Amino acid sequence: MKEFRTVVVGTGFIGPVHVEALRRAGVTVAGIVGSSPEKSTEASKALGLPATYPTLESVLNDPTIDAVHLATPNRLHFEQAAAVLRSGKHVVCEKPLAMTSRQSAELVEIAAASGRAAAVAYNIRFYPLCHEAAARVAGGSVGEFLHVSGSYVQDWLLCKTDFNWRVLAEDGGELRAVADIGTHWLDLIQFITGQRVVAVCADLRTVYPQRERPIGNVETFSGSGSSDIPRESVQVTTEDCGSVMLKFSGGANGCMWVSQTTAGRKNCLRFEIGGTEQCLAWNSQSPNELFIGQRDCANESLIRDPALLQPQSAALCNYPGGHNEGFPDTFKQLFRCFYGSIADQSFATDPPFPTFADGHHEVLLCEAILTSHRKRTWVDVAKDQGDHQ
Amino acid sequence: MKEFRTVVVGTGFIGPVHVEALRRAGVTVAGIVGSSPEKSTEASKALGLPATYPTLESVLNDPTIDAVHLATPNRLHFEQAAAVLRSGKHVVCEKPLAMTSRQSAELVEIAAASGRAAAVAYNIRFYPLCHEAAARVAGGSVGEFLHVSGSYVQDWLLCKTDFNWRVLAEDGGELRAVADIGTHWLDLIQFITGQRVVAVCADLRTVYPQRERPIGNVETFSGSGSSDIPRESVQVTTEDCGSVMLKFSGGANGCMWVSQTTAGRKNCLRFEIGGTEQCLAWNSQSPNELFIGQRDCANESLIRDPALLQPQSAALCNYPGGHNEGFPDTFKQLFRCFYGSIADQSFATDPPFPTFADGHHEVLLCEAILTSHRKRTWVDVAKDQGDHQ
Amino acid sequence: MKEFRTVVVGTGFIGPVHVEALRRAGVTVAGIVGSSPEKSTEASKALGLPATYPTLESVLNDPTIDAVHLATPNRLHFEQAAAVLRSGKHVVCEKPLAMTSRQSAELVEIAAASGRAAAVAYNIRFYPLCHEAAARVAGGSVGEFLHVSGSYVQDWLLCKTDFNWRVLAEDGGELRAVADIGTHWLDLIQFITGQRVVAVCADLRTVYPQRERPIGNVETFSGSGSSDIPRESVQVTTEDCGSVMLKFSGGANGCMWVSQTTAGRKNCLRFEIGGTEQCLAWNSQSPNELFIGQRDCANESLIRDPALLQPQSAALCNYPGGHNEGFPDTFKQLFRCFYGSIADQSFATDPPFPTFADGHHEVLLCEAILTSHRKRTWVDVAKDQGDHQ
Amino acid sequence: MKEFRTVVVGTGFIGPVHVEALRRAGVTVAGIVGSSPEKSTEASKALGLPATYPTLESVLNDPTIDAVHLATPNRLHFEQAAAVLRSGKHVVCEKPLAMTSRQSAELVEIAAASGRAAAVAYNIRFYPLCHEAAARVAGGSVGEFLHVSGSYVQDWLLCKTDFNWRVLAEDGGELRAVADIGTHWLDLIQFITGQRVVAVCADLRTVYPQRERPIGNVETFSGSGSSDIPRESVQVTTEDCGSVMLKFSGGANGCMWVSQTTAGRKNCLRFEIGGTEQCLAWNSQSPNELFIGQRDCANESLIRDPALLQPQSAALCNYPGGHNEGFPDTFKQLFRCFYGSIADQSFATDPPFPTFADGHHEVLLCEAILTSHRKRTWVDVAKDQGDHQ
Repeated sequence: MKEFRTVVVGTGFIGPVHVEALRRAGVTVAGIVGSSPEKSTEASKALGLPATYPTLESVLNDPTIDAVHLATPNRLHFEQAAAVLRSGKHVVCEKPLAMTSRQSAELVEIAAASGRAAAVAYNIRFYPLCHEAAARVAGGSVGEFLHVSGSYVQDWLLCKTDFNWRVLAEDGGELRAVADIGTHWLDLIQFITGQRVVAVCADLRTVYPQRERPIGNVETFSGSGSSDIPRESVQVTTEDCGSVMLKFSGGANGCMWVSQTTAGRKNCLRFEIGGTEQCLAWNSQSPNELFIGQRDCANESLIRDPALLQPQSAALCNYPGGHNEGFPDTFKQLFRCFYGSIADQSFATDPPFPTFADGHHEVLLCEAILTSHRKRTWVDVAKDQGDHQ
Repeated sequence: MKEFRTVVVGTGFIGPVHVEALRRAGVTVAGIVGSSPEKSTEASKALGLPATYPTLESVLNDPTIDAVHLATPNRLHFEQAAAVLRSGKHVVCEKPLAMTSRQSAELVEIAAASGRAAAVAYNIRFYPLCHEAAARVAGGSVGEFLHVSGSYVQDWLLCKTDFNWRVLAEDGGELRAVADIGTHWLDLIQFITGQRVVAVCADLRTVYPQRERPIGNVETFSGSGSSDIPRESVQVTTEDCGSVMLKFSGGANGCMWVSQTTAGRKNCLRFEIGGTEQCLAWNSQSPNELFIGQRDCANESLIRDPALLQPQSAALCNYPGGHNEGFPDTFKQLFRCFYGSIADQSFATDPPFPTFADGHHEVLLCEAILTSHRKRTWVDVAKDQGDHQ
Repeated sequence: MKEFRTVVVGTGFIGPVHVEALRRAGVTVAGIVGSSPEKSTEASKALGLPATYPTLESVLNDPTIDAVHLATPNRLHFEQAAAVLRSGKHVVCEKPLAMTSRQSAELVEIAAASGRAAAVAYNIRFYPLCHEAAARVAGGSVGEFLHVSGSYVQDWLLCKTDFNWRVLAEDGGELRAVADIGTHWLDLIQFITGQRVVAVCADLRTVYPQRERPIGNVETFSGSGSSDIPRESVQVTTEDCGSVMLKFSGGANGCMWVSQTTAGRKNCLRFEIGGTEQCLAWNSQSPNELFIGQRDCANESLIRDPALLQPQSAALCNYPGGHNEGFPDTFKQLFRCFYGSIADQSFATDPPFPTFADGHHEVLLCEAILTSHRKRTWVDVAKDQGDHQ
Repeated sequence: MKEFRTVVVGTGFIGPVHVEALRRAGVTVAGIVGSSPEKSTEASKALGLPATYPTLESVLNDPTIDAVHLATPNRLHFEQAAAVLRSGKHVVCEKPLAMTSRQSAELVEIAAASGRAAAVAYNIRFYPLCHEAAARVAGGSVGEFLHVSGSYVQDWLLCKTDFNWRVLAEDGGELRAVADIGTHWLDLIQFITGQRVVAVCADLRTVYPQRERPIGNVETFSGSGSSDIPRESVQVTTEDCGSVMLKFSGGANGCMWVSQTTAGRKNCLRFEIGGTEQCLAWNSQSPNELFIGQRDCANESLIRDPALLQPQSAALCNYPGGHNEGFPDTFKQLFRCFYGSIADQSFATDPPFPTFADGHHEVLLCEAILTSHRKRTWVDVAKDQGDHQ
């Protein structure tokens, strides 16, 4: 594989995750860029990277850089992704792709015009057993897709004193739990089943309309923290939890539950996809096992073992059966796919990664969910929101 | 305890379950009644019971009988339960209590006037760890009840060729999955949290609008069966699966998923109740464990061990920790409670079992769910349906 | 089935378990006998039984009694079982069958001569999935039996202050953990694999050579109890834990771990049987699932569902798939088999229950284990101990 | 941290694992060396490394290289490790450290004299929850260590046609399952409990005394393979499975089961450590959960969440709770510890990694196990084998 040179933008939790995964994937990480030149230098040092790029602009001006990864706050994605593509570089953007469907629609067009690879970092797909589930649905062994239920729950915002920029609509967007974690679930299910969500009926809830924000700086995933920090009360309008009932393009139905206030569930995505022949169930907390339910014979438990998987999912395994791979490995596999498809030019016709079109669809879905919640009724994703796909 | 004499009406799957549980509870089963005198005799023989009662009428006329258990088709519950109470006997009725809320409301009044104990057989409550969950919510260790998600799924109606009288609206009622299993879930959650569901928004689906009915007789839970049975096509309007979003009296929200077409899940009820301090999760397929999620320390896994439980749930354990109890034991415990409260006269003021009022509320809930599904909107249970409680 | 009349002897933990299971099996329990006429009366009352039999002698003299169940301290088994058989009644004896192999050998002969059914209550076999495992080994799908590992662990004797008559060699026998729970494991594995253990090498350990006995009475399974009870120190020679390495008649090998001092494991029997084709694993704490390991395809998880089991194990299920059965149900099934085989006279030629020969083999095994432990070497079960089977 | 330059020797399964983990740990991998200059070049290309070093000798002569990782066949470890240390470089050697205790003893001395860091790659310790277990035992919450049971089982040698160089005593050593996987278990338990194994009694078994070797080349972990490969029969003396009973320095006892012929268990290490207060149990197939058993309150399930762990184990987590880490991450953490302790010079006095003394002890243990198996008796590790620690 050609040697690629990449820069990561964003120094929070997920930026360094990209750095590590790029290294594992054999991609040269040429630098990391923070929200200020000082932060760029600091993060470069911490990660053992050359401190070459103080700003995104300096990256875009460097013709030796092939691609840029955007792990920045949501509100910056639109402008930055557009700039990266216009500079002739490939881009991997964290989700959500943009703050509005107008923006994400525009990004789809910019990406198409650019001739560059443009991915949204829906990494969960890249658990080998999630690809395996998709392969099995596509191959027909699951039968016709009937329905799906599941959830994505966390507990890092359980307490009124938990705070992060994402809880504020102006920084993270009007949706929070649905946008942050619900969209992972929705992307995953649509990827596996090959069906788009076409209508939604949502009920969201802000458990704490006011949260106690520490005065000064606060990190992501900061836990309960010390109680004697000075705090101020802030109004919160984004949802802590909620349900979304779903209608799929092929007629299937289902529902999703999301919550960031479920004590003891640190980061737990579960699904149960029912088909006419089999049911597939998976839990991100034990990602190396896939449950395959059957009516007239024993259920199966498939271990992430490349010797037992279909070729497309075995290709995402770097370790033999029983040698657990986890969350960090999903980013490695996503990036291997991304750069592999640039190397062999397949990205334009048959991208093996989540595209900007996928990212745009997720933004449309979020808008439909928010509208549905506000109107207390079903909302058709395609008709009401202008899905062009 | 006084020796009670009881007769069970109904010879399908659940009637004999009552017989066995009554024997374990130390209640004398004086007979079993079928849908005809012949069936009564046959069932009596099979279960080692005296064939004394050809019909329910003969039971009602026997002053030595203290109580009657109704394990008959849903459409008979109203008339039979009324008759039992009017004959001066105590009654345990299988769920749903009646076909309409008008009927169930009337039964609540008849029961109140009768001075007799009247229970609906929501047996799931009587898993000791379900009582433990209720005790913990009531005791405050879970914190304020925030939200709940969960499901009740089965696979016995997965195939188009699966058939049972329950799929026909005229025999089982207009709702099926929700009424048969969803109401167990709804009763359980309301029991544990101490909050009533006050509004619902439902989306139900009949996967197979036509099913292939074997010509002739067919048993409950009959499985895939032989394929060369002669069959006829029947119209099905009752739902195979669906979601219900929920609003609780104390402000909590949640959602429930039900399905009878989930391959490999034979009979699987799951819930995850989130509180401000802890989360309680439970799965009927491993009923001897309760998950207690915590944010700032390790999660707990509580085993059904009377030495570890609160008094009210320890009282439902007849076996020491590690000696698994299961589904049959829930009926035993329900009946021990029922007859115990008759023996000590506590049933009138503080019934330790699901009452006819509970059963009526479940019928109201079902009506609200059906209305919501049909109108595609939220429906308020109390306002729209005339809940008198 | 003919109506059988039975009396249970023993009023501790396990006697009432027999009573309940007999009732469920449709056998008439005519009485219960305690260690004194007063205890007999008291237990009869508590269980709702007629207080007809003050002593075992009075039972043996009653020609209307068909069978006697012995749930008495181990040291009484020999004499009582012999007496029951000599009185012409059938017998079910709790394990271990006797205190010495000389006694158990004699009981085998007495049973053979009596023409009566004589069972040892190895109930664990009667979990339907344990019968299923045996059926699968016999049917060949597991391949040649290669090896087995597993354990039986509890925690009720974890603390120095835990006490029960079983810890004293004079009352329970020189072996404790091995005899009480290890023999269940050994019986089960031999039942499933169809191979006898022919040699053992054991290492046992008394964690607490002295325990603090409450002065006065103490119940079985009494837990940690109150700390201010007056206590006296007693010498303990029976083992709290230990390993036994095993050689089987067909060449397989394996090892078993037993312990009554494993915190948090209330009553947990696990095995993992390796064959040339499949591996079968099971855990008594989730007895309704059987793990079937496979090398070249997905593993299986078989649920206790009569529709999915072989006929001999489906026959042990009284409830449909997903409706968990547990520990109490194993006794019901054992007794259904026992009395069924008396009813159809099959017990003499093809007993479907653990026989006195099985019980005798277990006593021989225990003696070999004790010898091996003391000599610190391998001991051949058959040669050293005079196994006549 | 100073930038370290490292070369990995060995291009089989585990060499590339080291390469990836070194990259993640921020160590510069300067090259990889194979069994021939051609293989070195080929592996360098495949892994995106400069093809600078055709042989180990060329590495040792390069003063810019700080450390060498040996992932070569067992029989080469002694000579290569000695050469690396003598060249003044730090060394990480795969287990087993050497083929004999004479060799491993000498390596301990060479390492001590060298003033260089010398580690054996017992990576399993570096699952954060294994470090957590050690911290909890050391901190006293588990109480006195009483006993341990467990196993390490795989299935990649289940069939007679499975073959790998490790099955041949001349290449892998006289022990196989015990040496390959058993030593991981033994190292782990001794690390966690802080007690050395001082005596063993072993029973090993070669299930297939003859295996069918493919004629020509064969990879590690090759699975069932195609059946039409030409094969030749080879004599196998190394064990496929076996039990080892254990005595620990502090008086605890236990037993370990190992097998490479357990269908469906791909790579499964389990332990259950019993203390007077708690029991700790863990399964490498779900490495992000630690079971903490308790007698008088609910059991705990501790998730690998840095916010919940003790400092020394939290330091091994790079991802927040719920974001699973796996097998690849253990190598990263081991190498972070190794190079960190070189950077801060702590390795000489307080090595945070498995040392050559640990590796030597494991070789002694293996020799004692082999002797015990052959003599069919207990063997004292220290006395019989000359442990100098």
